[in-house]
Amino acid sequence: MKIICSRENLLNGINIVQKAVSIKTTLPILEGILLNADDKFKLTGNDLEIGIECFVEADIRRTGSIVINSKMFGDIVRRLPDSEVLIDVSENNLVTVECENSHFEIKGIGSSGFPNIPEVVKENVLCLTQSDLKDMIRQTVFAVCADEHRPVLTGTLIEVKNKELVLVSIDGYRLALRRKILDVDLDDFSVIVPGKILNEISKILQSVDEDVYIYNSNNQIVFDTESWRIVSRLIEGKFLNYNSLLNKEFETKVIITNKEFQASLERASLISMNDKNSPVNLFINDDKIIITSKAEFGNVREEIKCDIEGNNLEIAYNPTFLIDALKAIDEDRSAIYFITTNAPCTFRPVLENSEAFAYLVQAVRM
Amino acid sequence: MKIICSRENLLNGINIVQKAVSIKTTLPILEGILLNADDKFKLTGNDLEIGIECFVEADIRRTGSIVINSKMFGDIVRRLPDSEVLIDVSENNLVTVECENSHFEIKGIGSSGFPNIPEVVKENVLCLTQSDLKDMIRQTVFAVCADEHRPVLTGTLIEVKNKELVLVSIDGYRLALRRKILDVDLDDFSVIVPGKILNEISKILQSVDEDVYIYNSNNQIVFDTESWRIVSRLIEGKFLNYNSLLNKEFETKVIITNKEFQASLERASLISMNDKNSPVNLFINDDKIIITSKAEFGNVREEIKCDIEGNNLEIAYNPTFLIDALKAIDEDRSAIYFITTNAPCTFRPVLENSEAFAYLVQAVRM
Repeated sequence: MKIICSRENLLNGINIVQKAVSIKTTLPILEGILLNADDKFKLTGNDLEIGIECFVEADIRRTGSIVINSKMFGDIVRRLPDSEVLIDVSENNLVTVECENSHFEIKGIGSSGFPNIPEVVKENVLCLTQSDLKDMIRQTVFAVCADEHRPVLTGTLIEVKNKELVLVSIDGYRLALRRKILDVDLDDFSVIVPGKILNEISKILQSVDEDVYIYNSNNQIVFDTESWRIVSRLIEGKFLNYNSLLNKEFETKVIITNKEFQASLERASLISMNDKNSPVNLFINDDKIIITSKAEFGNVREEIKCDIEGNNLEIAYNPTFLIDALKAIDEDRSAIYFITTNAPCTFRPVLENSEAFAYLVQAVRM
Repeated sequence: MKIICSRENLLNGINIVQKAVSIKTTLPILEGILLNADDKFKLTGNDLEIGIECFVEADIRRTGSIVINSKMFGDIVRRLPDSEVLIDVSENNLVTVECENSHFEIKGIGSSGFPNIPEVVKENVLCLTQSDLKDMIRQTVFAVCADEHRPVLTGTLIEVKNKELVLVSIDGYRLALRRKILDVDLDDFSVIVPGKILNEISKILQSVDEDVYIYNSNNQIVFDTESWRIVSRLIEGKFLNYNSLLNKEFETKVIITNKEFQASLERASLISMNDKNSPVNLFINDDKIIITSKAEFGNVREEIKCDIEGNNLEIAYNPTFLIDALKAIDEDRSAIYFITTNAPCTFRPVLENSEAFAYLVQAVRM
């Protein structure tokens, strides 16, 4: 294999595929990036949970392939001058990397042992802009369950049903949902993608209008663009029936300014120092919410103005869960629906007919 | 005690004195900041190694003093809106902190147990701009010894002698020296300041022309400005005779472009992956330096142009030590003086008559 490419394009590709490279594994080849020059020059990372391929523009002088340790290759290319890079593999798998006055010879590994990325038939393809997908992941993935004993909840549900795309995460204490109306007809599908992998994917996605194509088989899902392709395993099992958790009945409805509520909650949670899950009390009263918290070191009272419909109410929450929901909402204001002191509250858009998001947070028993 | 001040000024003061507050200690009062309102409003942090006082502009309504947990107080003020802050201490040491719609009550500790900062007589005062002192610390403190078994070398020597200020650090493998001609006459002095403390001081120093006044007793040194005062303990003992280590004889002298040499060394050190101290070889030859390194994963050759005077030479170094020296030098180019393959090299200014800095790095035996 012998190719010449720009250091900038090469580094960009390395940064993408490195998200799929194991850092520590018993199989050294999985700590490597597969370089493959055929009709195109392609980088591949694969940790057997997620596989990423990325095409890099290059002048291909001799076809072939090699695996190079990802960390070393990445560190070297990151520090090379911004110029043309020559990569030349000798018959004994020694990889020469040359750029201006820098000359590296790195021991590579033959590519025959590198695991293939599973093939998935490209059908029933969902198309979104990278920007939309990035936002929808960010706004739901934080609520996946960290507890590996509930594997289904460690993933985010991606569901297409009745011309609607829904992403949902549930961790047992809260639920995060984003919805998007689709303008094309697709067969319904419903898959669970590991939260850890969605986090990596959202780092690769750019806030741009460029399309990303999503399609799946029984146990794999593909995210595909012009320049890269990501294949992730799916989590088996049946997701919770999230619709049964969401309803719009309420005894108390408030409309708040998100940033103001978030800042007050963040301050109120400081009084409990290292116990970030120590509850805060909300006292919803006429035209304001009074937030209070008590701890070993003292107490705090915060007050924010809001519009209230329905009854006054006193209720307690884990402040982190409310803050996470508020951080996820891009709108300036949102409506919060409360039922009783022991029931969850639900954050929704202020516009009655918008179904774009729902964040449900379980109350703490007082 | 009752005062009103701006959140910005208060936070600025907290950020400065926090550098002297213990994070974990058996004495809870040392995890606190002393607030003192008398004719001025003053914050104090003191971990018994370093004490910092900072004056904060405030409207003093009632004099008094209190100690508040530094982490909690800092975190709260950091998150308050940018407005006026009221601090009011009740008779039972409960501290009310109020800002707009935020109201905190924090348990304080009576100030009587807070350790005093030692008094040092202000005489034989060295005056520098904050900017100069910050630079001189940055350019020498990195070379202090990390090994607590050699206490004298864990500090930086600050010496005034013959109208010259010298800062020197030595760790047994290298030496870093900065020199500044003084335009006033001072009595000679020579003290060793702990490197850890100088690092904290350099974070407080701003790159501004404002003056800082430096004076010392037998076991304390003071850094004093209009708004803050730092008192640090000194390290007892006799520093190495650094002058005997520096000489200007050479067999080979090269003039290099610092950034270019640094970038090449940084790349060359990558080949040894996790062993950052694995040596690199320099082959100084006619008009270039060839840098090579060999490791388990491969080998590297870097080439940079330079001006050479004297003999060709092959010599090995720990690349980190060379890189640290190059990072410390603000000039674009420097001269490096070599003697033999087993002797240290010395980085100096290109201008023959400049004595502003010297960095000495011990060679690695080949």
